[in-house]
Amino acid sequence: MTAIHLRRALLAEQWARGVAFSIDDNGLLAPVVAGPTEAIDGWVIPGMVNGHGHAFQRAMAGLAERRHPARSADSFWTWREEMYRLANHISPEDLEALAAWLYVEMLEAGYTAVAEFHYVHHQPDGRPYADPAAMSRAILRAATRTGIRLTLLPVFYAHGGFTEPLRPLQRRFAHTQVSEFSRVYEALRTERGPLVEVGFAAHSLRAVWPVELMQLCSLPGPAHIHIAEQRAEVTHCLRHHGQRPVDWLLDHVPVDDRWSLIHATHVTTEEVAKMAASGAVVGLCPTTEGNLGDGIFPLADLLEAGGRISIGSDSHITVDPREELRLLEYGQRLRTHARNVAADAAQPSTGQRLWIDAARGGGQSIGHPAGALTAGRCADLVVLDPDNPKLIGHSEATVLDAFIFSSGGASPVRDVMVGGQWVVLDGRHRDRDAIFAAYRSTVERLVKSRG
Amino acid sequence: MTAIHLRRALLAEQWARGVAFSIDDNGLLAPVVAGPTEAIDGWVIPGMVNGHGHAFQRAMAGLAERRHPARSADSFWTWREEMYRLANHISPEDLEALAAWLYVEMLEAGYTAVAEFHYVHHQPDGRPYADPAAMSRAILRAATRTGIRLTLLPVFYAHGGFTEPLRPLQRRFAHTQVSEFSRVYEALRTERGPLVEVGFAAHSLRAVWPVELMQLCSLPGPAHIHIAEQRAEVTHCLRHHGQRPVDWLLDHVPVDDRWSLIHATHVTTEEVAKMAASGAVVGLCPTTEGNLGDGIFPLADLLEAGGRISIGSDSHITVDPREELRLLEYGQRLRTHARNVAADAAQPSTGQRLWIDAARGGGQSIGHPAGALTAGRCADLVVLDPDNPKLIGHSEATVLDAFIFSSGGASPVRDVMVGGQWVVLDGRHRDRDAIFAAYRSTVERLVKSRG
Repeated sequence: MTAIHLRRALLAEQWARGVAFSIDDNGLLAPVVAGPTEAIDGWVIPGMVNGHGHAFQRAMAGLAERRHPARSADSFWTWREEMYRLANHISPEDLEALAAWLYVEMLEAGYTAVAEFHYVHHQPDGRPYADPAAMSRAILRAATRTGIRLTLLPVFYAHGGFTEPLRPLQRRFAHTQVSEFSRVYEALRTERGPLVEVGFAAHSLRAVWPVELMQLCSLPGPAHIHIAEQRAEVTHCLRHHGQRPVDWLLDHVPVDDRWSLIHATHVTTEEVAKMAASGAVVGLCPTTEGNLGDGIFPLADLLEAGGRISIGSDSHITVDPREELRLLEYGQRLRTHARNVAADAAQPSTGQRLWIDAARGGGQSIGHPAGALTAGRCADLVVLDPDNPKLIGHSEATVLDAFIFSSGGASPVRDVMVGGQWVVLDGRHRDRDAIFAAYRSTVERLVKSRG
Repeated sequence: MTAIHLRRALLAEQWARGVAFSIDDNGLLAPVVAGPTEAIDGWVIPGMVNGHGHAFQRAMAGLAERRHPARSADSFWTWREEMYRLANHISPEDLEALAAWLYVEMLEAGYTAVAEFHYVHHQPDGRPYADPAAMSRAILRAATRTGIRLTLLPVFYAHGGFTEPLRPLQRRFAHTQVSEFSRVYEALRTERGPLVEVGFAAHSLRAVWPVELMQLCSLPGPAHIHIAEQRAEVTHCLRHHGQRPVDWLLDHVPVDDRWSLIHATHVTTEEVAKMAASGAVVGLCPTTEGNLGDGIFPLADLLEAGGRISIGSDSHITVDPREELRLLEYGQRLRTHARNVAADAAQPSTGQRLWIDAARGGGQSIGHPAGALTAGRCADLVVLDPDNPKLIGHSEATVLDAFIFSSGGASPVRDVMVGGQWVVLDGRHRDRDAIFAAYRSTVERLVKSRG
């Protein structure tokens, strides 16, 4: 049992000065007890949850911003072909090295937890590994090595489209039976612990058909699904199910507060209201959605309806929660020609409102008691450097606005604690150099093998 | 005369290996002559031009992302009130300290030149300083101190709107006669030198009326104007002039390649074609335009029409050319639901095409021979660290895509040269600490005086 004293801390809804907590043996905050405490200077805020991502895609950051010579136009769907090609070259060891470095980048950026939406399960030829959870275990090792809080979401992925079989490029992702998937899932659930939760994902309504989706619903744990990311997906769903994706899902599946609806970009006002009423978290990935040209989610409508959000770095083209939130708000401003769209009378600071909401929604989405600094929740926190040039001159009223919106130059993130353990000090992860060396040699080998 | 040998350099249109230049006494690149050369490792690219900005606004970064309690909605126009309040507290010494630190941030981010659209001319009560160019000279000193290339654009600003007088809050900006402005302008023109150019700006069609605009056109040098940033401005211009702003300007003013049209957000297809045909540069400020909720400029149309662009950090809420270009491209993707919008067959790398175009257009816009690495142009260059985690595994084909689009963590900008002088080495400006200390005390005093 250790204890911490925070000079300035962002609690559930507001800043407080001189707050103390104990940290229990599970890495949770607890009411303070007598004894020595570690004093923490700087602006202390809850660690951000990275609610959605695919770790292996970190290796293609920057490789798909180039127009393909044979195509007149690039899109999400051509990007996906490049991504499949990369996915088919990655071994469990590669994945561990990529994910470990990615998690270092996340921790240094202020993410203290990550939900891994993990669908590269099998060998490149589609056969299961001797341990069918071998790729999942690579993710678990990477998280343990770096000290990040993990929610592993093995993905059920069975079809190539609403009426199409899987293609050869997708065979590493495939499970043909929910029962087979469930056995792997049960095995992974034994790995749960203070820093590890295990849930499941249904890849999408394209890849998981209704009867399979209903079977998956009997599994315990956090449940995630990609939904309504692309307009073509909406069109196909309308044609096949006679309803839009979110509308269909909420009418046919018992979606509640263990669910995260990832993207939900293309939704009507009615669908927004239904999502908010369901208690589910809407998982927004602004930098990837911008990079892939998905579209702009109607955030203001969801917040007004009392909906919940998380953010995710998804493809990891950007690994920075500040940029996710900045781009999220800017998308709204560009859409509505107004400013401070996410703010309201209760939370007038746009940056503070976005950070609090995304951290809290993120905590809900990953099934850990993470995302806010209160007793009973995870001791996951980020200390901002008050001497960072972006934060000079700011007080509680605006410091998170400066943190999120004033960008360029070194990040104000100075120290990061997960589950009561310091993993980043003075901007550097405790094991940065060794993890980077392994990442580097992995990427260089992958580049060589892909020609 | 010194000489440099670049192992890998981005020349006018493409990468080359093993390129050498001499640097002449004016800081321009020249054909190499015999003698010792300094070898430069890393990815060498032309320095970026920051084509539009107002230095004093750096002090309000993060202060206006908070919803005003008395207002139901914030907008560009309510933001402008906050900005005026700040402007009215700044002395020449304050401005020098703010601008010097801002220019350090720019140089460390890879900007090697800046166009200062400078309109805070007079004392807070509206009377000229004893030296009417006192505020302009503060900008000149800041640039000289930091080593950034400067184009100073004193702004003529005479009216509060198409039919409105200036308001008291705008009195520091006012000149009532072009003749009076011209005398200050002539005095400033004597400051021109290898690193300093002086042009002028007309604030906007709101603030400068047609007869004044025609008088300004007789002045030499680069010419800039804010135009069509906000929809209300388009409405008012239509009402007053019977034409949209860009349309009116191009029909009534001899706009040519010395001109920069700043923002030009709200334009029709016909206006885009006219801008491209004029030879003028369109000055885009994506992060500020996102922050202020201006709207998304139709970049793809302009590039297709052969138009020219620059980028600017404007309000300096973000000081990072990578983020300007990333957001510029993402805006297009979100609008069109396609990817790699700025790329084409000749320049398939989106990042490379954006960097080359914005640097070259920026050079044109500021009246220095900057923006490309060829003999006769400025020795302004940026060296990217090949060991930066974002650049690992990349070759010439994609390195600028990774540089611009893969974000989070430390910037790959390692060393920066302006006019043949190293001003940033290993990511740090040569005079960083002293300039930051002055910035810090200035901001802390300004915050205190504003309460």
